[in-house]
Amino acid sequence: MDIFIHEVGLRDGLQMESESVPTITKLQWIETLSQANVDIIQVGSFVNPKVLPQMADTDEIFAELNTRNDLPKNVKFSALILNEKGLERALKANVEMICMGVSASETHSKKNTGMTTSEALERIIAIAKTAMQEGKEVQVSVQSAFGCGYEGEIPEDRVYRIVERYFSEGIKKISLADTSGYAFPSKVERMFRTIQKMEPNAEFACHFHNTYGLGIVNSYVAMQNGVKYIETAFGGLGGCPFTKQPAGNVCTEDFVYMLQKMELRNDIDIGKIISVTKYACGFFMKDLPGYVYKVWKEK
Amino acid sequence: MDIFIHEVGLRDGLQMESESVPTITKLQWIETLSQANVDIIQVGSFVNPKVLPQMADTDEIFAELNTRNDLPKNVKFSALILNEKGLERALKANVEMICMGVSASETHSKKNTGMTTSEALERIIAIAKTAMQEGKEVQVSVQSAFGCGYEGEIPEDRVYRIVERYFSEGIKKISLADTSGYAFPSKVERMFRTIQKMEPNAEFACHFHNTYGLGIVNSYVAMQNGVKYIETAFGGLGGCPFTKQPAGNVCTEDFVYMLQKMELRNDIDIGKIISVTKYACGFFMKDLPGYVYKVWKEK
Repeated sequence: MDIFIHEVGLRDGLQMESESVPTITKLQWIETLSQANVDIIQVGSFVNPKVLPQMADTDEIFAELNTRNDLPKNVKFSALILNEKGLERALKANVEMICMGVSASETHSKKNTGMTTSEALERIIAIAKTAMQEGKEVQVSVQSAFGCGYEGEIPEDRVYRIVERYFSEGIKKISLADTSGYAFPSKVERMFRTIQKMEPNAEFACHFHNTYGLGIVNSYVAMQNGVKYIETAFGGLGGCPFTKQPAGNVCTEDFVYMLQKMELRNDIDIGKIISVTKYACGFFMKDLPGYVYKVWKEK
Repeated sequence: MDIFIHEVGLRDGLQMESESVPTITKLQWIETLSQANVDIIQVGSFVNPKVLPQMADTDEIFAELNTRNDLPKNVKFSALILNEKGLERALKANVEMICMGVSASETHSKKNTGMTTSEALERIIAIAKTAMQEGKEVQVSVQSAFGCGYEGEIPEDRVYRIVERYFSEGIKKISLADTSGYAFPSKVERMFRTIQKMEPNAEFACHFHNTYGLGIVNSYVAMQNGVKYIETAFGGLGGCPFTKQPAGNVCTEDFVYMLQKMELRNDIDIGKIISVTKYACGFFMKDLPGYVYKVWKEK
């Protein structure tokens, strides 16, 4: 079983923190995470810096990364975009892997983009196709795929129809994102099995939040059901804007620890990920939710 | 799939806290947990009060519970014992379900009991048989079944030989306890499958700690592999004495939330469990590790 880690702490983690991390610090973290040999690092997002000042330096970070020859060659850098302007910046920044998505929840979609899910879907598909024509690796997601902080339950058929549209346009890298942390194992199993049957050649990713403490078991179940790319954040950093208690992402080093014990990955340096987590704990002056970093001793 | 909750917070949770909870408070928590309809509540342990003063009132609590006719009849009360003296007290206290065990780790066994694993095993088997002759429900465990804080790896065969001895003596309720939190999914799956093949009529329980954040995924995997009794603690209270950072039990309300979403249990009142967790947070003046209680809103 090939399982890959898509580290999203620098994007989905930092965008929830009110304090912006200096560019130089982000670059140190990216360097260390690269040396840890995680597979993909999401460096940031190309969004309006007035809305998310924490991500304002994404262009600058890619410009710096593009000059660096000392980083491991097998580690990929990704970025999230929301619209055409974001794509333009991502192309200019020479981003290798571009991520984008639509929300399966009408309310979430309207609040986030001002568009209905269908409107947003057609626009994202056009953007994805342009990016693919430019030779980029593209991953599209369905946000709020397992439920919505505003609407509650989201009919699974809504998700399947979105995924079907992606497939019909030749987009084969699909992530289901549990934006609000509503997923649970039997639903994760059913939904990934269903979309896998729709397109056996597709590659699937998952993105779970820990609102109800189920992030790691949901990621495990996804992995047991053919999902290859697991999106996680160092220290379990991050949160979900729809709950009072911010609930982080699945913790990278905890998940990698499990993969190591299961003999699925022995090439990722947990100690290096932990050093980033500890740096971040110091920077934000708080504990992060991860477990492994609290008990880790280097051998 | 029938899954039952064995709530161990009052025993495995409280024994790790330096501050003793007053008897009257414990009784309030037991009452609320009974009304929540968890299946079994471990009330305490019959151990030397000089060693564990937090458990010194276990006889008194059972004496009180024995006079109560207002508690739900289907909720069972259990207690842990370590030796003959404990059994004597448990019988006198009229405990319905008696739990006991041996450690698969020689070092852990010697430190805890002064005996080797084989010596402790023969003694526990004799105690278990006496308890069964007295008409008690008996659950025996293998502690450090997935690894040991002192010894590290524990050969799985050591665990299987202990379980075999239990079976050969007609003891059919077996718990594998991950005392130090070293379990991981593929090992949980393999070990429970192995012991199930040895005795298909046995009933299995599991007990996981969150040292590395894998408690809930391990419990899920156990449940998918025929384990019916899941040992959990409200709020994720508890710890493991073998790690610097005390890592709690699997959190009862988080696990029950998952069971509810999976439509495996709809008869447990999560709100009532959460009220005990919040009371305990106030009592100990700290947050507990559980997730659900932090975001729960009564409908």
